[in-house]
Amino acid sequence: MTAAPRPAPVAIDDPADPRLAPYTAMRERDLVGRAGRFIVEGEVTLRVMLSARARFGLESVLLAPERLAGLAEALARLPGDVPVYTATKPVMSAITGFPIHRGVLGVGLRGTEAPGAPLPGLPPALAPALVVGLVGLTNHDNVGGLFRNAAAFGADAVLLDAGTCDPLYRKAIRVSAGAALIVPFRQLADADAILAFAARHALEPLALSPGGGETLAALLPPARTLLLLGSEGPGLPPDLMERLRTVRIPMAPEFDSLNVATAGAIALHHLSRSA
Amino acid sequence: MTAAPRPAPVAIDDPADPRLAPYTAMRERDLVGRAGRFIVEGEVTLRVMLSARARFGLESVLLAPERLAGLAEALARLPGDVPVYTATKPVMSAITGFPIHRGVLGVGLRGTEAPGAPLPGLPPALAPALVVGLVGLTNHDNVGGLFRNAAAFGADAVLLDAGTCDPLYRKAIRVSAGAALIVPFRQLADADAILAFAARHALEPLALSPGGGETLAALLPPARTLLLLGSEGPGLPPDLMERLRTVRIPMAPEFDSLNVATAGAIALHHLSRSA
Repeated sequence: MTAAPRPAPVAIDDPADPRLAPYTAMRERDLVGRAGRFIVEGEVTLRVMLSARARFGLESVLLAPERLAGLAEALARLPGDVPVYTATKPVMSAITGFPIHRGVLGVGLRGTEAPGAPLPGLPPALAPALVVGLVGLTNHDNVGGLFRNAAAFGADAVLLDAGTCDPLYRKAIRVSAGAALIVPFRQLADADAILAFAARHALEPLALSPGGGETLAALLPPARTLLLLGSEGPGLPPDLMERLRTVRIPMAPEFDSLNVATAGAIALHHLSRSA
Repeated sequence: MTAAPRPAPVAIDDPADPRLAPYTAMRERDLVGRAGRFIVEGEVTLRVMLSARARFGLESVLLAPERLAGLAEALARLPGDVPVYTATKPVMSAITGFPIHRGVLGVGLRGTEAPGAPLPGLPPALAPALVVGLVGLTNHDNVGGLFRNAAAFGADAVLLDAGTCDPLYRKAIRVSAGAALIVPFRQLADADAILAFAARHALEPLALSPGGGETLAALLPPARTLLLLGSEGPGLPPDLMERLRTVRIPMAPEFDSLNVATAGAIALHHLSRSA
């Protein structure tokens, strides 16, 4: 069976063309959200979206004409009904409202999850599992970095409380090197809901904190782990820490300040080694 | 003995005031360099500069008036001959050439090193030592992040080749959370000069790379280590890798992409544990 040939890219000159409406006022919409859509930018993340590993589909792609040739092979994997638009970088900048340097954008579709659906990627009971839980992480760089590190160490999924920022925020996707498009995640209400999820799925919670009780390097990784991380400033709430097994990464006495994504990477490296 | 009282801060209204010349055209000068000076910005880095741990002195401080009270205690440690200027944020923005949000700036002095002087911080022969070597790291975020991680794990010093960017670049200092002001470093010509330094000081070179021969977790840390890191794209040059003991951090097969500062943190965590 031969795949139907892809329609040719559609060149657009008018920044007000309604087909490009999802690309307009990009920074403002980063803040308010996009009703089921998200933006990918740059070649690395677009290539992830075009790979079989992406959990999300594309609604459309918008490229500077000079980027078409280099991406032709990857674009051949795009379903025929997903349009590829081209516009010069000045037109792209006029559409998005800020200077576009790389000339590679796409609109992704979040899709919907049935209520009560199992978390994709979570290994079944008794199988080894490594899940990351993020509580109150409001910095997109940190969330993106944690997804990148979760992917690098083969974590199965990420759980987020409602105070943690959206992994499909444009910059978080970019910082994640596309990992936010690959690693399954689910947002739950709060830390208690994350712990209830862990209990239902026999994941042992480990809270990483500079004030943790056990040293990471001396820890025998549980077979099924939930690694809990809090924000860099306040960290995990004290009442949560009191109820959990807590782990620390020993640091130099006068400079105990690792970035949370970096601390998470060190913990994931240790926890994933037994998997 | 009572310290002489500090002179009162000097309020400046005129962006062209010659006393503030080192603060002008800040971004342009980031690129061309500053002849023995560097800029610190933000409260975290200024506090490091005002602490006993900073390796560098301040030439002057420039604050928005509303930041004076919060920093008064830290500023009391400033030598009496180092002026504190105040200017409103609009004036500060006019001076620097870009919008100043935090209202905290300072000019640091690089000082001079006698030719052939020993590298500060390097433990004497036979004592345990952990030194980081950076080759071709052109990204300020990565260099800043590596200094932060070097400080967190008590590395003694950092060596840089001429292709690695300046740790006292404004953004590198900020990303380092001030560690670039604390951890001793020296720029050498190239990787060969870094290896010659290591040989002279009995440091065993370990090259970290995704293609490394030994697994980090199985490595018994040498007593005196030089941890060599290359840029994320090309990594360490192949001819260098062939001559050295190489180490890798195992990663998920389809996503072997850790940030170099993160990979360095994981290696430093492992190497520093025996110290």
